Amino acid sequence: MNKQTSYLKIGSHEASKGEFDTCLLLYSGGLDTSVMLKWIQEEYSCNVITLTLDIGQKSDDLEEIKQKALKLGAIKAIVYEAKERFANELLSIAIKANADYQGGYALSTPLGRVIISEVAVQIANENDCQVIAHGCTGKGNDQIRFETYITTLNPELKIIAPVREWSMGRDEEINYAKKHNIPVKQTAEKPYSYDENMWGSTAEGGAIEDPSKIPVLEDILQWSHSPFASSVNPTDLTIQFSKGLPTHLNGNKKSLVAIIMELNRLGGEHGVGVFNLIEDRMVGLKVRGIYENPAATILITAHKKLEMLVSTRQENELKSFIDTKWAYLTYAAHWYDPVMNNLKAFIEMQNQKVSGSVTVRIGSGNVSVAALDSKNSLFDASFATFNSDASFNQNAAAGFIEIHALPQKTAYNVVLTYNRK
Amino acid sequence: MNKQTSYLKIGSHEASKGEFDTCLLLYSGGLDTSVMLKWIQEEYSCNVITLTLDIGQKSDDLEEIKQKALKLGAIKAIVYEAKERFANELLSIAIKANADYQGGYALSTPLGRVIISEVAVQIANENDCQVIAHGCTGKGNDQIRFETYITTLNPELKIIAPVREWSMGRDEEINYAKKHNIPVKQTAEKPYSYDENMWGSTAEGGAIEDPSKIPVLEDILQWSHSPFASSVNPTDLTIQFSKGLPTHLNGNKKSLVAIIMELNRLGGEHGVGVFNLIEDRMVGLKVRGIYENPAATILITAHKKLEMLVSTRQENELKSFIDTKWAYLTYAAHWYDPVMNNLKAFIEMQNQKVSGSVTVRIGSGNVSVAALDSKNSLFDASFATFNSDASFNQNAAAGFIEIHALPQKTAYNVVLTYNRK
Amino acid sequence: MNKQTSYLKIGSHEASKGEFDTCLLLYSGGLDTSVMLKWIQEEYSCNVITLTLDIGQKSDDLEEIKQKALKLGAIKAIVYEAKERFANELLSIAIKANADYQGGYALSTPLGRVIISEVAVQIANENDCQVIAHGCTGKGNDQIRFETYITTLNPELKIIAPVREWSMGRDEEINYAKKHNIPVKQTAEKPYSYDENMWGSTAEGGAIEDPSKIPVLEDILQWSHSPFASSVNPTDLTIQFSKGLPTHLNGNKKSLVAIIMELNRLGGEHGVGVFNLIEDRMVGLKVRGIYENPAATILITAHKKLEMLVSTRQENELKSFIDTKWAYLTYAAHWYDPVMNNLKAFIEMQNQKVSGSVTVRIGSGNVSVAALDSKNSLFDASFATFNSDASFNQNAAAGFIEIHALPQKTAYNVVLTYNRK
Amino acid sequence: MNKQTSYLKIGSHEASKGEFDTCLLLYSGGLDTSVMLKWIQEEYSCNVITLTLDIGQKSDDLEEIKQKALKLGAIKAIVYEAKERFANELLSIAIKANADYQGGYALSTPLGRVIISEVAVQIANENDCQVIAHGCTGKGNDQIRFETYITTLNPELKIIAPVREWSMGRDEEINYAKKHNIPVKQTAEKPYSYDENMWGSTAEGGAIEDPSKIPVLEDILQWSHSPFASSVNPTDLTIQFSKGLPTHLNGNKKSLVAIIMELNRLGGEHGVGVFNLIEDRMVGLKVRGIYENPAATILITAHKKLEMLVSTRQENELKSFIDTKWAYLTYAAHWYDPVMNNLKAFIEMQNQKVSGSVTVRIGSGNVSVAALDSKNSLFDASFATFNSDASFNQNAAAGFIEIHALPQKTAYNVVLTYNRK
Repeated sequence: MNKQTSYLKIGSHEASKGEFDTCLLLYSGGLDTSVMLKWIQEEYSCNVITLTLDIGQKSDDLEEIKQKALKLGAIKAIVYEAKERFANELLSIAIKANADYQGGYALSTPLGRVIISEVAVQIANENDCQVIAHGCTGKGNDQIRFETYITTLNPELKIIAPVREWSMGRDEEINYAKKHNIPVKQTAEKPYSYDENMWGSTAEGGAIEDPSKIPVLEDILQWSHSPFASSVNPTDLTIQFSKGLPTHLNGNKKSLVAIIMELNRLGGEHGVGVFNLIEDRMVGLKVRGIYENPAATILITAHKKLEMLVSTRQENELKSFIDTKWAYLTYAAHWYDPVMNNLKAFIEMQNQKVSGSVTVRIGSGNVSVAALDSKNSLFDASFATFNSDASFNQNAAAGFIEIHALPQKTAYNVVLTYNRK
Repeated sequence: MNKQTSYLKIGSHEASKGEFDTCLLLYSGGLDTSVMLKWIQEEYSCNVITLTLDIGQKSDDLEEIKQKALKLGAIKAIVYEAKERFANELLSIAIKANADYQGGYALSTPLGRVIISEVAVQIANENDCQVIAHGCTGKGNDQIRFETYITTLNPELKIIAPVREWSMGRDEEINYAKKHNIPVKQTAEKPYSYDENMWGSTAEGGAIEDPSKIPVLEDILQWSHSPFASSVNPTDLTIQFSKGLPTHLNGNKKSLVAIIMELNRLGGEHGVGVFNLIEDRMVGLKVRGIYENPAATILITAHKKLEMLVSTRQENELKSFIDTKWAYLTYAAHWYDPVMNNLKAFIEMQNQKVSGSVTVRIGSGNVSVAALDSKNSLFDASFATFNSDASFNQNAAAGFIEIHALPQKTAYNVVLTYNRK
Repeated sequence: MNKQTSYLKIGSHEASKGEFDTCLLLYSGGLDTSVMLKWIQEEYSCNVITLTLDIGQKSDDLEEIKQKALKLGAIKAIVYEAKERFANELLSIAIKANADYQGGYALSTPLGRVIISEVAVQIANENDCQVIAHGCTGKGNDQIRFETYITTLNPELKIIAPVREWSMGRDEEINYAKKHNIPVKQTAEKPYSYDENMWGSTAEGGAIEDPSKIPVLEDILQWSHSPFASSVNPTDLTIQFSKGLPTHLNGNKKSLVAIIMELNRLGGEHGVGVFNLIEDRMVGLKVRGIYENPAATILITAHKKLEMLVSTRQENELKSFIDTKWAYLTYAAHWYDPVMNNLKAFIEMQNQKVSGSVTVRIGSGNVSVAALDSKNSLFDASFATFNSDASFNQNAAAGFIEIHALPQKTAYNVVLTYNRK
Repeated sequence: MNKQTSYLKIGSHEASKGEFDTCLLLYSGGLDTSVMLKWIQEEYSCNVITLTLDIGQKSDDLEEIKQKALKLGAIKAIVYEAKERFANELLSIAIKANADYQGGYALSTPLGRVIISEVAVQIANENDCQVIAHGCTGKGNDQIRFETYITTLNPELKIIAPVREWSMGRDEEINYAKKHNIPVKQTAEKPYSYDENMWGSTAEGGAIEDPSKIPVLEDILQWSHSPFASSVNPTDLTIQFSKGLPTHLNGNKKSLVAIIMELNRLGGEHGVGVFNLIEDRMVGLKVRGIYENPAATILITAHKKLEMLVSTRQENELKSFIDTKWAYLTYAAHWYDPVMNNLKAFIEMQNQKVSGSVTVRIGSGNVSVAALDSKNSLFDASFATFNSDASFNQNAAAGFIEIHALPQKTAYNVVLTYNRK
């Protein structure tokens, strides 16, 4: 009962030594998971298969990662292409839900964790792995996402979370790596931790952490120019949507993956979608991160304006509540709670009519919807003009106002009268 | 019963000819209200007193407006300085409520209508006016706001709305003006309609209206550079907040009015807070406007981030709903419905702790909160770091996760099992 | 411009004399619409076709109503059987949405107005009626529902609303009736106004109105015993649901109409679903009514409990918000706003799993769900027991609690520390 | 690392043997906490002080409990009278918030846990106890409430939770009790677990658990007659409220405690406030309980109707959301999260005007608000009547309707047109 000195396994879903012979490791090729690959073999005397997903992260050389895994002792190193699946199954609903957590975060990491978990469970089943290992710390959201999703999708599977367990600090980890001939890339000078997929890149740690310090964007950004330093001239893009999803860019039909990739490139040049955010983690801590999500920012800005154009005021007010709820639940590892199906049904229904063309101007960090066109538009030119021949019946106004004002007038004067006494 | 050919007065709160001898006209000095000033005298054979508020609009020469009113026959022309009152009574709560209607609109006009109505009722009472006249059309929101607020604040008062009544189109109005020696400023080439106060400027009409056309910002903006054309270098500002309200700018203590004025100037130079929006009017129409609200954009961006830093995740999620509700109700002329007091009590309570310093970087249309400092910050440096000696107990994670996952795991598998059969 | 002395037609959707030759009158057979049937012929010099729907109201003899209409000059008297349509298209969603406006009102009248409008538009089209007349006053909700729905479903149709127009009081109306040989049923002693369909009966007017008086239920109720006076022994009913809808009563498969009819009878005997409510009308007034909705009360009570059993906590909290929104919008004549489709999609999705059996005990005004059984139940007997061998891992609790408590503990102590200084 | 065989302490807030010398035990006098009193002394070799609160539970003889504690070895046995504090600090806000979790549960236990935690922290400080022990299992909500609240109120305090730790089943516990001469009251025949305070009584366990079985109320109820078996004649009560709180019962001024106690007695006779509920626990399980809360049911029913009478439709819709949120958070151990202060500010503001008199009829399990009177009533007799001389302007209706219908009509027909093609 001596607590806090070492990690005690108490989760029913945590695997113990001897309970399994093959472990599937979610392998990024970075320092943490490379150290882990060795450490699991040593600590658990088991085989390790590595799984690396391609979900559109830019910085990874997947073949190199595969070879590194095999060199470090993996009995099999699997690289799984999941770009289409990620875009079509997850990012599509993120666009329709105008994904925005706490002010602009399009949920790249939380959504990435869903697709990784799904593929991992599938690969574990195919390869007779009884256990999945992930590289997350015990202080973050991602452990919650992976372990919740994996055990939901297959309650028979167990997990191990070496970083929680091994109690190595940064220095010990680097020493371990050196001792086992694992290459160390992350230097003391640039100690940021990145998570990346086609929907966005997140940097945390080091100088980013303390909210009272100004982070130096130029040192941190990987995809983008700083919005303040971008010198390129503004560009106009035309995005065509059908039922809530982008189908054409500047008139050319493209897959969702291709549109996202292209907008990441273009948006990055213009410093679009770069911001910092102090988000509320699930574990009750706040953390500041630097986000780059050019494509997500452009697509969601465009989608939201088009959606508002074809929806009524009642729809627009309620949708903002539904979207916020969707974002908070997605962030907080509730993806497979059936409440998400209900929200999705609402979101999909509203999006049935979100079709049309959006002209977006990007430049110097700005994204501005310059023009919108839709056959379902609820804007009616004849009504909103200043001309006297409009078909809007001005004579209806006074009646509307009198009845609109009635409860307010009554309540205000009743309470006033009462308070005066 | 011949309808639609001419306006029929059916509102109990609409004044008829002969029912009153003195009318208070809300007078902007522009074409519409100048024509109105003459027309009311002719049509209703009554005296007219004009009221012009100074709520920080930039373009008005108030002395000139006063003289113009007298010249056009007003028996008294009142200019009322309401800048402090507007800022302290209305904009203060707008900041705390992160005022945002449908994507960035800080509600300058709806809030302006409240202060104008309050002052108008006061002035009408002081000057024995039985009727207040406003210059709004029968198709917009502002008639609803004025008539609702005026009759709520004093149910004895009646209103007239000449634009609804007179059935003059733009051309007839200009002819009427010319015939009565009223100067016509608004030309056919620039036919935009502006509403302006210190919280923002709105342009509507003409080429702005059709959402499928790209408006030419340079022709429209009155306060600001285009965000895409701004060539000034980025600037860092420090704004200090106390209980939700800004008190110091770059270290200098200033009144709220002074801070807003200064930020309008600075923000305008950098093209901050310029955007178009297709808003849902209360009368069921959509309308596109071009907005300039530099100070509002800077203050609300800064306030929101600081508020989030000192609030819990529960507070942050709920506040976004409360703020949205506040904005929809403020927009839709519910200011004196007691529900607004309840919302305000919520908002004020959360803002008790919103004190601290915010560093904002502005440039090229961008506003970015670069750093935040507060004694009430819920960020704790020792928790969020990557160091192994943090006081966060990593051993708590697995238990948290197991219980977090339980309902989702159960529901997912129960439904899955059922669906499989 | 002499207002208030007589009705002025200003609505674009109101028909004027001479504009049409055939009017479809929504005809209940009661005093108001019988007087109207004569009055329209006289006032508008047009043909009148009457439409009477059978939506399960108990008190009407439809053949008698038809003959009465013809006797009073209708060129055609249509009785339309809409019970199945009403139940299957409207009440089905009401059950899934746990219909409840402001404390127990299952929305019988607002839902009835939808089906009447749909059928009326269809019949008007089939019979070349250009105009539909309804019997609602100018102070209530029903005029808003009928006119909104009719003009939405067919913008070409116009309406007339004689009660708004004719400015007869109760006494003048009775005199008009007597003069035209229209039988007068409603006596001065029992001056209640009823609206009735299979989903409930509503009484308003007379002694019911003033909320400070206790209404004498025995004088008012038409379907039910008073809950306080019911002397029958309690009964247990078993209702089987499939995907949110009742399919069997006490083991016997029945149509939705048959189940509702049977539960109205049974519930009425036991005084179930009788209550008074001071509801907020759309026009800003409050009104007290006495409601009888036995079947609705039993079905919704049963459905709600079953729904909660098969749904997660996240679903249950959000559903209560969605249901409230659905009820407020249904009450307030927003049925064809597309927001209702979005809400319906949410509601239908959650109801996919609402299948199982509910045992309901009714007696003396009480409805109590005594037992519930569902293959989708999220209750797991092995978890909630007090036995030590349960599969719930008690060791997970402390970790869950520590992380659950963290934000609260931090925020409480930060603010406390700050306030102390 | 051998998990699940015995409890492992991993919570930072859990005390270990040797870390403390005096423990404050939350002592009910029942079997669990009596066994615990002995067990803590043995297991932790420490002194135990017992704390028993009087919060209006009916079944306890507090002097007897005190003597029992001393007999079982407590060095001090404290009985703390907290009825007034409980009522005035906690139940007062519960009334104003119309406390209702998942269908009628007035939150007696969750609110009781708050006052117990507050007093416990105070007594622990006064008596130099470093640790507080509670008797909750590892599967329920109450452990979360106690540990969250105690460590929030004083982060220095630690806790022990013997039931989680000792791994005794019911039989072992009874054996332990017999061995240590602890009287065993709870027999195998009536194996229900009760929690009780003046706000309600809850029974769980045994035959209550399985939702598919009908519980035999007569065997379970402690305070009340069954609603179905009550044979007393209905009674009318008059409750006077001031600013949301009851002040007089049948004309006599009484304290909140006295009103609650009296209504428990009266309501119990009439079987009011008895129901079963399958609630969603925080730990992801569902559990069915039988509730008796007569006073809470009567007061909240009366309060809610009065609140609705003096509030606008906007207030009434929003309040139902706010109340639901308040109930879910109160249930889920968020009492000291600052979000509760914000909600409370909203609730208190709306309640400023909730003053007046409510006549409640109770009988056979029914509570019905028969009449309401308030100087702040928004019901206006002159408006809602059927007389032709009412001051409501019927001529305003058509204008209101036309504008109300516009967005719906537009959206419906735009989408219809689009879908037709």
